[in-house]
Formats: sequence, C-alpha cells, structure tokens
Amino acid sequence: MKKIEYSELKQTVSKIFAKIHCFSKESNAIAEILSEADLRGITSHGVARVPRYINHIKTGIIEINKDPETILETPVSLVIDGNNGIGQYIATKSLEKTIEKAKTTGICLTTIRNSNHYGIAGYYAEKCAHENMIGISMTNTAPLVVPTFGKNMLLGTNPIAVAFPTQGKYPILIDMATSVVPRGKLEVHARNDQDIPLGWATDENGLPSDKPKNILNNMLKKSGGGLLPLGGEGEKYSGHKGFGLGLMVELFTSCLSMGHFSFETYRQKGGITHFFAAIDLNIFGNAEEIKSHTEELVKTIKQSELSQGSERIYIHGEKEYEKREAYLKNGIPLEETVYKNMIQYL
Amino acid sequence: MKKIEYSELKQTVSKIFAKIHCFSKESNAIAEILSEADLRGITSHGVARVPRYINHIKTGIIEINKDPETILETPVSLVIDGNNGIGQYIATKSLEKTIEKAKTTGICLTTIRNSNHYGIAGYYAEKCAHENMIGISMTNTAPLVVPTFGKNMLLGTNPIAVAFPTQGKYPILIDMATSVVPRGKLEVHARNDQDIPLGWATDENGLPSDKPKNILNNMLKKSGGGLLPLGGEGEKYSGHKGFGLGLMVELFTSCLSMGHFSFETYRQKGGITHFFAAIDLNIFGNAEEIKSHTEELVKTIKQSELSQGSERIYIHGEKEYEKREAYLKNGIPLEETVYKNMIQYL
Repeated sequence: MKKIEYSELKQTVSKIFAKIHCFSKESNAIAEILSEADLRGITSHGVARVPRYINHIKTGIIEINKDPETILETPVSLVIDGNNGIGQYIATKSLEKTIEKAKTTGICLTTIRNSNHYGIAGYYAEKCAHENMIGISMTNTAPLVVPTFGKNMLLGTNPIAVAFPTQGKYPILIDMATSVVPRGKLEVHARNDQDIPLGWATDENGLPSDKPKNILNNMLKKSGGGLLPLGGEGEKYSGHKGFGLGLMVELFTSCLSMGHFSFETYRQKGGITHFFAAIDLNIFGNAEEIKSHTEELVKTIKQSELSQGSERIYIHGEKEYEKREAYLKNGIPLEETVYKNMIQYL
Repeated sequence: MKKIEYSELKQTVSKIFAKIHCFSKESNAIAEILSEADLRGITSHGVARVPRYINHIKTGIIEINKDPETILETPVSLVIDGNNGIGQYIATKSLEKTIEKAKTTGICLTTIRNSNHYGIAGYYAEKCAHENMIGISMTNTAPLVVPTFGKNMLLGTNPIAVAFPTQGKYPILIDMATSVVPRGKLEVHARNDQDIPLGWATDENGLPSDKPKNILNNMLKKSGGGLLPLGGEGEKYSGHKGFGLGLMVELFTSCLSMGHFSFETYRQKGGITHFFAAIDLNIFGNAEEIKSHTEELVKTIKQSELSQGSERIYIHGEKEYEKREAYLKNGIPLEETVYKNMIQYL
C-alpha cells in the first residue's frame, strides 16, 4: 500500500487528463470526483478508473471539449444531452443548473442522455444536501445484471443515491448499486482464488455459481450469466425487488431522457444516462425543524440494541465519512498497482 | 376456498364500514382499495384486514369522519395532516389534490402525517400513471424490521411503489416492501409447521433463525428480532442496502411530514405517514414518445433468454394484472376463514 495526500492525488489526476488535452474544467471534474471516491474508501470508483477513462477517450467512446446541451426546460425540469462528453463534467454542469433551478422553484428533476461514467452517484446527491435540498442521483451503466429468471446481462448495476440534509457536517447518504454486489467483489475473490457466496452471480446457464473466474470470463464474453439483482436469485429472497429497483433506475435515466438502455451502452459511444433530483427541504416546512426531527430518528436507530456479535449500527454514509476524515489527516492508502497504472500516464 | 364477484366483495366491505357509522366516502374508499388488493391476488392487503380496521376504529386508533387538512402548500408541494382519519380516505383525497396540482405545474410532492394504514402502496402510484404521470407512493408502517446489525424492530416494512405509464392498459408497477418478506409469509409457514429460509428474520438475540413461531412470538412481545431488510442479515448479501431503502422511506414520510417514525406508531393513534409524487411525463418531452421508447426496454427484457429451469421473465405488475383480469371474469378466490371473519361484521 502506498499513501498519498488527497490534494496530491487530485493534482496528479488533473495533470494526467490535461496531458491528453482535456480542458481544465474537464480534468478538474474528473480529478475531483475520482479522488473523492478514494478519499471515502470507495476504491472501485476511484483513480483505479484512470486507465479505463483514458482508453475511452483514445477510442472516442468519450469525447473531449463537449458541453451539456439543454434540450428541454420547464420551471421544474431539464432534459440534457451530454454530447458524449466527459461524464464527471457533463454531470457536474447539469447538476449545477438543477440546483440553481431548484433554488427558484423548490424542485428540479433532470434527465441526461449521451453522457459517460460519472463516478460515484452519491457525490452529486450530496451536493444538493449542502444546499438544504434532498438530492437524488441515479445512472445506468454497462449491462452487468441479469433480470430475475433471465440469463443475460441487460441491466446496469444502476445505482441509486439519496442524500438527506442533517444538522451535522455530512448528510445521510444512501448510495447503492441495485445488484447484490459490484463486479469488483468478484474480481477480488478471483484474484485471491476464493469462491464467492452462492447468490451473488450466475453462470452460463443462468444458475447461481460460486466460481468467480468462470463467471467473470462469461461476463466478458457475454456468454450467459452475470451479477444478480439485490435479493439474489429468483424470488426466495425477493430478487425481483432488486430487479425492480434496477428497472426503476432505467426508467428515470434511459427512458425519460430518450437515451440508450444499459444493454445499448458502450457501442460506438458510452451512451450513459443519468437522473438528478434536487428538492428544497423548505417546500415542506422549516428546514431546520425537519433536520432536527430527523436527528431523533437517526439517534434512536444508532443507539438501539445490537444483535449478538455486532459492534455498531451505521447510518448510511457514516462509514465513508469517517474514512474521509481519517484519510484527509493521514493520507489515502492506494494499492501499488493502482498507483503505477495511473502514473504511467503522467 | 370461496369465490366471490369483485362487485359483491366491494359492496360487502362498504356495507360493513357503513354499519359502524363510517361516512360513505370513507367506506367506499376502504372497500375500493381492499377489494382491489384481493382482485390482484395481494391477499395480505385485502379484506383479510377488515377485522383489524374495525378494531382500530373501535379503539380510536382510527377516527371516523376526519378530513385531510393542508398544513402547507407551495406550487409543487403539499404537507397534509390526516387528523387520524381512515387511511384509504385520507390518502385518496390527498392523492387527488397531488394529481390536480401536478396537472398545472408538472409535478407535486406530498407528505402526509397522522394517517392510518392505506392499503396497497401501488394503488396510489398507479392512479398517477393513468394521468400520464409517474407515480411514487411510500408509507411507513408498524415497526417490524431490524436495522443492519441491530436487534430491535425500528423500521416499518416501508414499501416503495413506482408506477410508470405505458402504451398498454396497465403501467409498469414496482410495488415492494423494503423487507426481504412481509410478516404474512412467516405466518403462513407457522400455520403449516414449516421452517423459513435463514435470512428472512432474526430471533431474540438478533441472529438469523428458521423458526417462524418463535420469531412471531418475539415480534408480538417485542422481545428482540424481527424481519430482515431486503438483502438479509449483515452485509454479505447487502442487507444494509435494504436497510437504506427502509430508511429512505422513513425520510420521505415521517421526517418530511414532521410525523411519527415507524417505531412511534400505534400508540394512542395510528400515526402512519405517507409520501406521494406525481410527475407529468410531458415535462420531459412528448409523453407518447417516451412511452414508445420504454416499450422497447420492456420488450427486450421480456423476450430475452431464460435462465435454466425458468418459465418466464415478468415485468413488475404483470403478475398482478393478469390475476386481476382472470378474477374479474371468474370471481376472486377468498379463504373461508377470511370470508367468515369479514361477514361477521355485516
């Protein structure tokens, strides 16, 4: 493990993307959001993505110097075309406009097509919370998840993030892929020659399997099987609910924006679609009173009795924010290979 | 099993509640929504609830002849106090106003406190879809679900329903409790002397158990354990995601409305809270084009290859709507005991 200062990491990433001719507004957005992921310990969405993004820029999946374009605007909504630009930049600009509009009307819903991978969904939801707004952020992704009773990967891991303002420094931040686990967890098990729990993913026949190497190989070749939706296989543990959540994300992102469905992404272009909502707490009353009321809920849950063998009840976001504080102070731990794979482009 | 015509069932329920002095607007709302649940095969939320509602009215948990009262109104939002009235009536009236407002501004978000059990969440979401609107309906409930790593029931089964308009007769209708399973499933297993799968619920120590009678007994006495959130125990299958979804429902219902949290419900009054959103498709473009685009997504998923041993991929709502069509034609099957328990009040 290597340790690196947050500001240094951010600067490094920014330089890398400037070097391949990204505009500073673009390289800064990528740097900001990838570093923030590592700062919170979400390594799957951190600077480990640098080589993939660079490859996507080189092959034209992602285009440089593209601005988001407003296709339709009402007092409470936006439809934006990302023009195949850099996901983090397209999303940041779109979110700024979303928040700006919500300051006037109390709410704005925004759907975005022709964008690219935008990093951690929660980053955008949280921005709203800092404005006393509920933030919702969703995106579709490359197809990795099979529908309940289906064999083929048709849905993305389609994360949902919801941020709710609090009286403290950080909001409540629910940020979850709608699959049981991300592909990254299978990769870690494969590298360590470990079986995975049955119920995470399926094999080429669409049946649950504990062999991550075989599954990952099938996923790469699209020869059947993939990640299971939250709730696992079939209906025994309500896998159809996770499938429903993934479908819901698809409805708000690719359907509303008239964009590409998860199973149509990464052909010539990324074709990723997002959805944002910014909802001012004040349209429901006094924001401070609502936050104070919410504090009671949080406190009661956190202070409630633990199940046998458990150490702590976490409210969503807490784990990541605690890492953030520690890593800001002590530096961010980065895997040596992740670091090397990144700085080769410096 | 007894078979009963839909219209007869509805009339019977309406009569029962009229007999205990409900106003016709109230008994009609209860009759409509309970019968609709049985018509879709959602027996847990159908007329089996009649004795419980009557008991709640008799003990004052639910109050007769109470209208919803608008506490706060902006062009895009409503905060409503249900005055402890009949859940179905309070919710129906609140939803009507929500849809009316969304017809003007394109969107309305409504949060409701001091209501009661409102029946199937999806009923309300679907009403929006018939107006070319996306409908969202959430409610908190009696506390039945334990937080991840926690021992005590603090969250309700907190369902989320999302309806999305289609070109067909019925919308896409995702309607899901955020627990792995409803309590009703444990009751069925207990009656049949069957073990439940590990991962549905926990025992008095907060550990997974397959003994439904013991679990139900603990739940009744609140002596520890309860239903697990979607994803099951701990983080292995991402139970924290289901916990996050349940928490999200609590934020939109009890927190935004300044109402009672799930763990505070059913003291002197029901104290149930709801949330509705009605979002006009036309604020994102041409509604017909969006629906036609969505049709492609649905078709591709439905026609995709099945996993080994599977018979069909269902889009959310389909199963229930097919039952609805069949039961409208052939009558609704009702358990004899459910029927007897109901008509004793006729």
